[in-house]
Amino acid sequence: MLDFTYYTPTKVIFGKDSHKKVGKIIKDYGYKKIMMQYGKGSIIKSGLYDEVMRSLKENDIEVVEMGGVEPNPKLSFVRKAIDVARKENVEMILAVGGGSAIDSSKYTASGAKYDGDVWDFPSRIATPEDALPVGCILTNSAAGSEMSSSAVISNEELNIKRGYNSEFNRCKFAICNPELTYTVSKYQTSCGIVDIMSHTMERYFSVCPPTDLTDRICEGLLKSVIKSAKVLMDNPNDYDARATIMWASSLSHNDLTGSGRQHVLPVHQFEHALSGEYHEIAHGAGLAVLLPAWARYVYKHNPERFSQFARRVWDIEDNDDLGASLKGIEAMEAFFKFIDMPLKLREFNIPQSCTERLADLCTYGKQRTIPTYIELEYDDVKNIFDLCY
Amino acid sequence: MLDFTYYTPTKVIFGKDSHKKVGKIIKDYGYKKIMMQYGKGSIIKSGLYDEVMRSLKENDIEVVEMGGVEPNPKLSFVRKAIDVARKENVEMILAVGGGSAIDSSKYTASGAKYDGDVWDFPSRIATPEDALPVGCILTNSAAGSEMSSSAVISNEELNIKRGYNSEFNRCKFAICNPELTYTVSKYQTSCGIVDIMSHTMERYFSVCPPTDLTDRICEGLLKSVIKSAKVLMDNPNDYDARATIMWASSLSHNDLTGSGRQHVLPVHQFEHALSGEYHEIAHGAGLAVLLPAWARYVYKHNPERFSQFARRVWDIEDNDDLGASLKGIEAMEAFFKFIDMPLKLREFNIPQSCTERLADLCTYGKQRTIPTYIELEYDDVKNIFDLCY
Repeated sequence: MLDFTYYTPTKVIFGKDSHKKVGKIIKDYGYKKIMMQYGKGSIIKSGLYDEVMRSLKENDIEVVEMGGVEPNPKLSFVRKAIDVARKENVEMILAVGGGSAIDSSKYTASGAKYDGDVWDFPSRIATPEDALPVGCILTNSAAGSEMSSSAVISNEELNIKRGYNSEFNRCKFAICNPELTYTVSKYQTSCGIVDIMSHTMERYFSVCPPTDLTDRICEGLLKSVIKSAKVLMDNPNDYDARATIMWASSLSHNDLTGSGRQHVLPVHQFEHALSGEYHEIAHGAGLAVLLPAWARYVYKHNPERFSQFARRVWDIEDNDDLGASLKGIEAMEAFFKFIDMPLKLREFNIPQSCTERLADLCTYGKQRTIPTYIELEYDDVKNIFDLCY
Repeated sequence: MLDFTYYTPTKVIFGKDSHKKVGKIIKDYGYKKIMMQYGKGSIIKSGLYDEVMRSLKENDIEVVEMGGVEPNPKLSFVRKAIDVARKENVEMILAVGGGSAIDSSKYTASGAKYDGDVWDFPSRIATPEDALPVGCILTNSAAGSEMSSSAVISNEELNIKRGYNSEFNRCKFAICNPELTYTVSKYQTSCGIVDIMSHTMERYFSVCPPTDLTDRICEGLLKSVIKSAKVLMDNPNDYDARATIMWASSLSHNDLTGSGRQHVLPVHQFEHALSGEYHEIAHGAGLAVLLPAWARYVYKHNPERFSQFARRVWDIEDNDDLGASLKGIEAMEAFFKFIDMPLKLREFNIPQSCTERLADLCTYGKQRTIPTYIELEYDDVKNIFDLCY
């Protein structure tokens, strides 16, 4: 087991009607004036907006609204939000939504306390030294941003998507009511499921000494997500299945599934290049295409690991490690297909000629390699993108 | 899944040599004067005391020492420590040791900020509203106190042992170096393993709607602990096995293994009566006797649960739920025997006539029942103690 620091200070308030407590929760922290970030109106249509506002009002919380966070949240929006947060002197940011609203809020929170441009953080020019507190009401199980230290943003000028990790990115509280995800579409539910599985699998497939306990937690989480996903395909309002996916979302990305392991998420690097270039591709859908391609390219470099994954997660019975590995990858693909995820990039009508550009984006113009089992250089990265066709 | 709040703000610094960072860590928090609580000299013999003091000195931390914490920490010691903490105006308490040093520190920390007597907390007369921060350097994997909200203490005047839960009982940081547990005796290592398993199993066996994810985490943790325990019997200096047990200790009792489940620890109630009366019985050894006895008494009221436990944790192949349940309990007993734990109370030379007194203590003089599957009344509790013979 590698040395690690585990720090998950987010208070998770999980369960039915939990969002109705938001005003009281914020009041108990002592905040009186907040910024609320949310998306494009789905929370208004569902009635969540009214319930949240009522709770905030009842607890005398003054609210500065910043609606309009887009999927793959945009730098220009964050810059605007930072200006407003400073001008209005808000004491905290409340995100109501999924990973986009939360990540946008995280950037706003650290940007508001930084003299330079917030793009400096994902560009590794600066690291945050202070931030406003962020809390969230989660409405989509996917990104795990509610408990994670990471935040991803898209720079429209440069057409790239980048993230960074910081302890200042940890939410102070996360209100998680699985019922709020009943209205998430089947497609977006599946995208979220792939994202959760990917956060878990990419850590699971990192290189390190034995971490049997973390392995078992990852495998158990994956089995449980797969089981719940199958339930949700037929019954999207199954509370326990929605609750399992929501809690798995938080646990998959709060560092538990990586404790004692190397922290690298190789497939996410591929996907950020992909959906950074093609905004119409949902993050989870991109991962569903990339995970099997990546796995097929690297599994022979560590069949012990891939066969353990196959046997324990997918119940593959095959004593040959290479054979079992391949069957595990096939089982993963079949599952993605079962939950209606794309398996190939051609399903998005993206011509294969784009793989050069994608490989270039992913390697920052051949300036970096992508790790795990073998260092993937530009040509490998392009080969993996080619396998997506 | 039941509603729950998950809040584990303890920063865990896990790995080799991590204890040498203690001075820097405390300095970074801004504390200049601390109380250090530890046991009876084993940390001096091992050299840990010197290494800790060196790190504290190098970082200009002033230390008020309170050595002499006993196993099953005593109320009288805590009262003395509270007086010293107030008189010396210490800013935090550092526990160097296992559950005893940490629990003693937790009581000192909340007692120092309370006008009444600290026994009011476990007596349910008062709840803490403030506390000094507590940090720890863990030297034994067992109680899980390094991340838990609970603290147990023995009142020598009344000859009883009680605990209580509070968010003020969460350590601010926990320094976990598995190498520090190399010198823990085989017997104490086994006691710790049973305690960790019991924290997990008692939550696992609570009553609630489906919690597949939490089930899988519990089962994975147990499988991993069992595997590592077997390694340690032959090779007590196996780093990965020691690390697994140490990390499992924290995870078993930080609420992860109970998320979405009812929070009751029935067997711990029995054991507190037992080792509260017979101080020579180590907590884990008492649990090793009580867990199978409790399980045999209640399993027929929920064979679905016990057979799941048997099949997933102990790999029992038996399609009959009752039959599988019993085989699972037998496998657990065989494992406890394998790690040299006692299986019967007669091994402690305690006469069976004591079971009336123990049942009386456990039920607070027939004033309470013990839950899970059936409400265990005085007669049931006595029957279970009788099964321990």
